[in-house]
Amino acid sequence: MDFRAIIASHPDVKGATADRLIEATHAALHCAHACHVCADACLAEPMAQDLAQCIRLDQDCADLCLATWSLGTRRTGQNVEVLRQLIELCAKACRMCAEECERHAGMHDHCRLCADSCRKCEAACRAALAEVH
Amino acid sequence: MDFRAIIASHPDVKGATADRLIEATHAALHCAHACHVCADACLAEPMAQDLAQCIRLDQDCADLCLATWSLGTRRTGQNVEVLRQLIELCAKACRMCAEECERHAGMHDHCRLCADSCRKCEAACRAALAEVH
Amino acid sequence: MDFRAIIASHPDVKGATADRLIEATHAALHCAHACHVCADACLAEPMAQDLAQCIRLDQDCADLCLATWSLGTRRTGQNVEVLRQLIELCAKACRMCAEECERHAGMHDHCRLCADSCRKCEAACRAALAEVH
Amino acid sequence: MDFRAIIASHPDVKGATADRLIEATHAALHCAHACHVCADACLAEPMAQDLAQCIRLDQDCADLCLATWSLGTRRTGQNVEVLRQLIELCAKACRMCAEECERHAGMHDHCRLCADSCRKCEAACRAALAEVH
Repeated sequence: MDFRAIIASHPDVKGATADRLIEATHAALHCAHACHVCADACLAEPMAQDLAQCIRLDQDCADLCLATWSLGTRRTGQNVEVLRQLIELCAKACRMCAEECERHAGMHDHCRLCADSCRKCEAACRAALAEVH
Repeated sequence: MDFRAIIASHPDVKGATADRLIEATHAALHCAHACHVCADACLAEPMAQDLAQCIRLDQDCADLCLATWSLGTRRTGQNVEVLRQLIELCAKACRMCAEECERHAGMHDHCRLCADSCRKCEAACRAALAEVH
Repeated sequence: MDFRAIIASHPDVKGATADRLIEATHAALHCAHACHVCADACLAEPMAQDLAQCIRLDQDCADLCLATWSLGTRRTGQNVEVLRQLIELCAKACRMCAEECERHAGMHDHCRLCADSCRKCEAACRAALAEVH
Repeated sequence: MDFRAIIASHPDVKGATADRLIEATHAALHCAHACHVCADACLAEPMAQDLAQCIRLDQDCADLCLATWSLGTRRTGQNVEVLRQLIELCAKACRMCAEECERHAGMHDHCRLCADSCRKCEAACRAALAEVH
């Protein structure tokens, strides 16, 4: 799936693909995946209960990443103010999830890989803000 | 489904049900339904293309209402700052969707009913903020 | 939110509201809520790890209930065969989740209440099949 | 995001990564994206109303792809029968969406690209069934 090619074919886009926004929606979709796996993997760890806060932040982050992907992908009509604030909030949720996962990164590879995805998504969201106005 | 009874049975709630937050998640779930129906009904109207902005705001509002319901319902662990900002953003998305739907309320009953749900959800979200800290 | 009134205003419905389908989408939305709360509450129980299978079935059931609500609510265009099979699958996921929750119903009120919602949604889905053809 | 690496770190996986299932969840997530873009792009086309059935199948397919991704990614606990039927249903929804999109593929690049994603996801789902038992 080439995320840019299909957006470029949208009749209202006309060359203004907003590539950093496309990258942010791509990063958000993949971050949702990492958080979804990490929450499920934490639940199967022997010390699952000690990971309850990690599971919570994973799940919240996955929900916000999916919402950011969904709104950020729409190009018909406009909802700029809401989209901007959602992207900012997604970056914050990613940062908080990354910070929690990083505390367990030495012990659990799923936390380490999830933290990486969250940091990438946080950066992609911040970069995308320049294109959402 | 009694939204309050099942939350009251959560082991971490211990009497602190936060009833206005429960009402906000209930309003958000029902507002997501109204927006989902309104978007689909607009698409079937003879002048669908004139309703493209209404469909956009309906869809964005439905996504944010579902995210608000999902995060606002979790009681294991904590994510207060993100939840607060999401509830505020949901209230804003509801207000913008209501304003657009109200422009078509005289013509389309689904827009009138959707605007009602959005206004109720906006108010419920604002009331819930007092309990999220 | 009156689920029937807003569907009745859809331009393609013209009186054919399919009330049992509306009831099934309503039951599915509320069952998604019950499963979402139950999964989160199980995670906070002292014996969370013993409830991992319950959490899994809750989460899967919530996902299928939301998908059933989403597809079952659309009235523009047609996708009858897919919708029928999804409603049947939702009924099965509800039955399996109910059976698991019933095993813990004496111990956890959230499991008892979730099982009730799953049984109601299962019945509503089966009743709705008569209207989806 | 390496979809395989993070699944391999799940404590219950222990080498049994089920690579074709991972590929199916990856294809489903990307197909959900293509369908989401195609539905939104169809809405912006001058003849949007003639594309209402395409939008409907896109939206239904996106919902089922996201559900398939979500259930197919979980590795804690078991829900084999429901997962199998969901993957089969996802393949069917992809096939139907592809057939509709292919009718407009000569006119709209988003329909052509969406049909490609649907065909890939359909094939990936069918291949994954060998690993879900």
